[in-house]
Amino acid sequence: MLLHTASWPEVEAYLEGSKGIIIPIGSTEQHGPNGLVGTDAICPEIIAHEAGEAGGLLIGPTFNVGVAQHHLGFPGSMTLRPSTMIAAICDWIDSLHRHGFERIYFLNGHGGNIATIQAAFAESYAGWSLDADPCPYRLKLANWWELPGVMEVCRSIFPVADGSHATASEISVTYYAYPAAVKTVTLNPKIAPEGGFADAADYRARFADGRIGSDPSGATAEKGAKIVASARDALVREAQAFFKR
Amino acid sequence: MLLHTASWPEVEAYLEGSKGIIIPIGSTEQHGPNGLVGTDAICPEIIAHEAGEAGGLLIGPTFNVGVAQHHLGFPGSMTLRPSTMIAAICDWIDSLHRHGFERIYFLNGHGGNIATIQAAFAESYAGWSLDADPCPYRLKLANWWELPGVMEVCRSIFPVADGSHATASEISVTYYAYPAAVKTVTLNPKIAPEGGFADAADYRARFADGRIGSDPSGATAEKGAKIVASARDALVREAQAFFKR
Amino acid sequence: MLLHTASWPEVEAYLEGSKGIIIPIGSTEQHGPNGLVGTDAICPEIIAHEAGEAGGLLIGPTFNVGVAQHHLGFPGSMTLRPSTMIAAICDWIDSLHRHGFERIYFLNGHGGNIATIQAAFAESYAGWSLDADPCPYRLKLANWWELPGVMEVCRSIFPVADGSHATASEISVTYYAYPAAVKTVTLNPKIAPEGGFADAADYRARFADGRIGSDPSGATAEKGAKIVASARDALVREAQAFFKR
Amino acid sequence: MLLHTASWPEVEAYLEGSKGIIIPIGSTEQHGPNGLVGTDAICPEIIAHEAGEAGGLLIGPTFNVGVAQHHLGFPGSMTLRPSTMIAAICDWIDSLHRHGFERIYFLNGHGGNIATIQAAFAESYAGWSLDADPCPYRLKLANWWELPGVMEVCRSIFPVADGSHATASEISVTYYAYPAAVKTVTLNPKIAPEGGFADAADYRARFADGRIGSDPSGATAEKGAKIVASARDALVREAQAFFKR
Amino acid sequence: MLLHTASWPEVEAYLEGSKGIIIPIGSTEQHGPNGLVGTDAICPEIIAHEAGEAGGLLIGPTFNVGVAQHHLGFPGSMTLRPSTMIAAICDWIDSLHRHGFERIYFLNGHGGNIATIQAAFAESYAGWSLDADPCPYRLKLANWWELPGVMEVCRSIFPVADGSHATASEISVTYYAYPAAVKTVTLNPKIAPEGGFADAADYRARFADGRIGSDPSGATAEKGAKIVASARDALVREAQAFFKR
Amino acid sequence: MLLHTASWPEVEAYLEGSKGIIIPIGSTEQHGPNGLVGTDAICPEIIAHEAGEAGGLLIGPTFNVGVAQHHLGFPGSMTLRPSTMIAAICDWIDSLHRHGFERIYFLNGHGGNIATIQAAFAESYAGWSLDADPCPYRLKLANWWELPGVMEVCRSIFPVADGSHATASEISVTYYAYPAAVKTVTLNPKIAPEGGFADAADYRARFADGRIGSDPSGATAEKGAKIVASARDALVREAQAFFKR
Repeated sequence: MLLHTASWPEVEAYLEGSKGIIIPIGSTEQHGPNGLVGTDAICPEIIAHEAGEAGGLLIGPTFNVGVAQHHLGFPGSMTLRPSTMIAAICDWIDSLHRHGFERIYFLNGHGGNIATIQAAFAESYAGWSLDADPCPYRLKLANWWELPGVMEVCRSIFPVADGSHATASEISVTYYAYPAAVKTVTLNPKIAPEGGFADAADYRARFADGRIGSDPSGATAEKGAKIVASARDALVREAQAFFKR
Repeated sequence: MLLHTASWPEVEAYLEGSKGIIIPIGSTEQHGPNGLVGTDAICPEIIAHEAGEAGGLLIGPTFNVGVAQHHLGFPGSMTLRPSTMIAAICDWIDSLHRHGFERIYFLNGHGGNIATIQAAFAESYAGWSLDADPCPYRLKLANWWELPGVMEVCRSIFPVADGSHATASEISVTYYAYPAAVKTVTLNPKIAPEGGFADAADYRARFADGRIGSDPSGATAEKGAKIVASARDALVREAQAFFKR
Repeated sequence: MLLHTASWPEVEAYLEGSKGIIIPIGSTEQHGPNGLVGTDAICPEIIAHEAGEAGGLLIGPTFNVGVAQHHLGFPGSMTLRPSTMIAAICDWIDSLHRHGFERIYFLNGHGGNIATIQAAFAESYAGWSLDADPCPYRLKLANWWELPGVMEVCRSIFPVADGSHATASEISVTYYAYPAAVKTVTLNPKIAPEGGFADAADYRARFADGRIGSDPSGATAEKGAKIVASARDALVREAQAFFKR
Repeated sequence: MLLHTASWPEVEAYLEGSKGIIIPIGSTEQHGPNGLVGTDAICPEIIAHEAGEAGGLLIGPTFNVGVAQHHLGFPGSMTLRPSTMIAAICDWIDSLHRHGFERIYFLNGHGGNIATIQAAFAESYAGWSLDADPCPYRLKLANWWELPGVMEVCRSIFPVADGSHATASEISVTYYAYPAAVKTVTLNPKIAPEGGFADAADYRARFADGRIGSDPSGATAEKGAKIVASARDALVREAQAFFKR
Repeated sequence: MLLHTASWPEVEAYLEGSKGIIIPIGSTEQHGPNGLVGTDAICPEIIAHEAGEAGGLLIGPTFNVGVAQHHLGFPGSMTLRPSTMIAAICDWIDSLHRHGFERIYFLNGHGGNIATIQAAFAESYAGWSLDADPCPYRLKLANWWELPGVMEVCRSIFPVADGSHATASEISVTYYAYPAAVKTVTLNPKIAPEGGFADAADYRARFADGRIGSDPSGATAEKGAKIVASARDALVREAQAFFKR
Repeated sequence: MLLHTASWPEVEAYLEGSKGIIIPIGSTEQHGPNGLVGTDAICPEIIAHEAGEAGGLLIGPTFNVGVAQHHLGFPGSMTLRPSTMIAAICDWIDSLHRHGFERIYFLNGHGGNIATIQAAFAESYAGWSLDADPCPYRLKLANWWELPGVMEVCRSIFPVADGSHATASEISVTYYAYPAAVKTVTLNPKIAPEGGFADAADYRARFADGRIGSDPSGATAEKGAKIVASARDALVREAQAFFKR
């Protein structure tokens, strides 16, 4: 069940049976020459939407621009400042809490969001902790690629050079979600370099085409389907367990 | 062309021919018993996506939670505080400006967003005005229902009680976009009351099922298709003109 | 009754009979070669002060610097960033609410303030809506030139080229309020150009002497007196109705 | 010369001869049973306006709501949060700097504003200091009652119990400025108690009618005229010296 | 008793007997050629620590970076923006209030902090004043050099040119606290110039080696010991009195 | 070399040879019945100070209150809101950048700080990335217990139940730093439970005496000395390498 395609009486009815909701949260940023700018939003969204259908879970709107300052050297990348993202996440949480949601599960698609999402959780909890009222809700962050069993599937499909940005796995997922968007591009070098980075200028200087450590040339929609299936099933189990806690 | 399904080299290529982008901007809020919570995000998104295809325009991600504090009395509604939304819009603008975009066209789907979007534009311009550097970009806000010719189409389809919230027209558009989400609900009263409102408690007290002035019982996907077609064509013309200015 | 010339026991006594207050809100910005920089603050102030006397209404201090970033290309113009103005308006509202005011009527003198004032209202209401407590106060924004009957008076006096910035009407009002400040200047062109604008550099490039669409050469204190009288009477009626709601 | 009754070309001409401006800054807060709520805004305003006329100095709009949280126990008092006031003062400074003002003289009427104004100055300077660019403007804070010679005049007129809030001197100044607002009230006790305070509840508990240490029963417009004359002349000298530095 | 070397059960036990805590608050900024960058944090820290031991008072962590924008022209100086410092102080206060502390005594070591600390107090109180709940805690700011009797000791030791920044007294205190850090430097001129300042560039231009009005060449640890002893005893008395109020 | 006990000319001289600085960053929060409230600040501070001496590295002041909202159920714990901490860290970075520091190494003592510090880094970098200027500095976060070789030393000393909060290792380090502060307390249960947590109420309900997974009953200063020695040497190597990059 998608919040966006539900009516409010349907949400009201859902809340009688469950106080849990999943929020896909991603980013809008370059993913190399054959990856989609929306990859990090598309992946958690497609997984969450399929899990919502499979498990009868409510899925909220996708938080689709995150912290991607380091990708701004590549056209199309967008970022929130972390302080803005914290404020926005807190507003989302406050809104959902208003309706009685007690379990908010953020399914994340972007490593660069992790710190800021966790900081936002602490910001949200801090209000309650400083006021000494017990917080009535619980917040959870999970990266889709770390859902139980998913990494194994990815590694079995891409045993070499799945990489850490613009990975073969995530690009496969997006090709599954948007088959018409498959790009055929020659990658050079085939496997991108590894390493760390600071700001956007530094990132671009180190990673000429935007990829880190990956060879996504073998990405296909079919492989993406397998990854999504694995992640979907894991998410249903994880979210159901979280919602019941 | 959708930013989310494009690669960064495709965005780079696009920028050689155009400095313009369209951002659908909406809200996540109740739309009465047979309307979708995502209506105000879905409408500008579907119109912009079709216009992007028809006119070769670049469409950014949808800003999908806006200022909807007055709807919080109905489950599923979400809001940003206006100060948060201003910060977020400014971050989006700054990101796009970074890549050389000079025309950013916000296609809006929610009346409650208008003031805050305009305030965000003034916030963004103010940085340049106070620094005395000419601002290199132009910002435009357009409500989809006010695109040239659209209101006429809506009025011709729904001559009576299209209303001002949860309108028959916008619900038709969402049914066109998500045919599987059509709700069959008896509306009582058939035509919702009109009026103003303040906070969420006040709104809920005045508008028992969330609608204002509308009778969306006749909403259909077919009618939505006509409205979208009209809005799509108008948007292509308007955006192309704006991008060239 | 002016808040600034009242004592606190007088305010206390007033509150026993009415929970309403009027806040004139304007701007400090250029108004062309013969207009006063304070025009947009002076107009709502003089109208509100006369209405306060005529109708026994309490008038608060004038919020005298607003959002005027687009006028910063002309010496003397001042602006708040919209985010600052929202914070300040919310502090004013919170202060008045503290004393039991339940109806706060902002009489506005500047078009550029409208969006930010409305956003501030949403910011103020959002606190209550998110907390699920009914908001005990109501906020109203009215532009003095849109008070019932006022535009008709202006149009009858200035049937041609009243304009949209540095209008003949508003300059007349300021001449009525400050007869010693009347400027005698030759305007060239007589009628200023029309159009939109973005930041300060853009505004100055389009509107060489600051006016938009107006020919204020016929502005006089006598004409201003008529406009003020009309606005004063309308404000008394409108505010009294709002206070009773 | 008042900014509000000047035209922009007049401000432009002024800037050719001087880069200095005076900003009256006050508060809206209770001043005891016979004092005006606007006292702390009215005093610096009348002094500055007379000095502007006497010395050919440009006087900006009055910043009329300050930090008065401790007075909120008395109806009509209004406050900004200090963080809001800092933001607003910085916006005023940035606006004036935009036009080339290099000396901004804040004539203050409220002890409770001092810390926040100074903090705002440090906030404004900090931007330049952190960027390593020399700040092109200088900011000055002066309390009108501390202008050279003024305290002596006050003490000679009110040798006993001038007090520290709702002083006989300041109430005299407001009676001079607004003779129609003179209040005749029996004060009990004649001389108010002295002491410190924390929040509004604490203040009201300690100072039953709002006054601190004062007996303003002898305040008159005539005495106010003398105080204003002294302050006016001192301000002209002080501001001219500051503008030339 | 130091908060940092206590366990939480020890703090809990302390709170049964006293609701008071002392927070040393200073700055990290240049103190001339023979003064320590940490002087303004070290002085209140050593005095508070000794007073804590002598008087059985709880001493919190040292707030060690303050508002020092004007010193940024000298290497090693650090500053908070005043708005940041207000937020941080409010968080410290909120945390201590959470545990039942009702008297928070800030022992300050830096003149440049005074305004911002006072503004922070007003910010903290304002929350209560606007909500109309009595604030359960009291905040106090004291500069160590103004503790009763301390200035007399300083003047007796350094009758000439103690100065106002990088004073002989404060440098003596730091030499007492960190004997290994004593610097032997020839000062030229022996007595630094006096005067005011604005931003960092202005400060550096006026005060070539960072000192203001001081000749700290005679600073010694022994003299520092006397000053600390005086301040320690005064602080015990002052804090005990404040805690009991 | 400690920034706080250096003079500005000494810092200036240091900057000729190195552009690197280490900032110890910790927290003020309960560490169980026998642990110090200052543990998380004391540990990175003592390690950094010893490394500074051993390796000739400059050590800045300790950032001593971090994000500890979850510990507020225990007396003495203090927290910054993450948004405040981000602002403060950015001010520290901006100050150090002002003097030409190009490598800022945050040695962290608190797991709860990690996300917010990383978010602060992104906030700081984002300013440069959005402006398209290459950021001239690099920021690094290292947790002292993850310095190369340190965990092995801890595990060899405390092979069982070192735990994850109020660990035997960290308490040993504080006993080494402050031998007079050693607490003798019977722990019950000997080994604290493991688990996650949300806000302060939740934390206190799960972890009755504040410890997580640890048995710090065997903590001694001697063991702490070994851990510090290991961490000190590792830090010298790591920091020197970082400073040279």
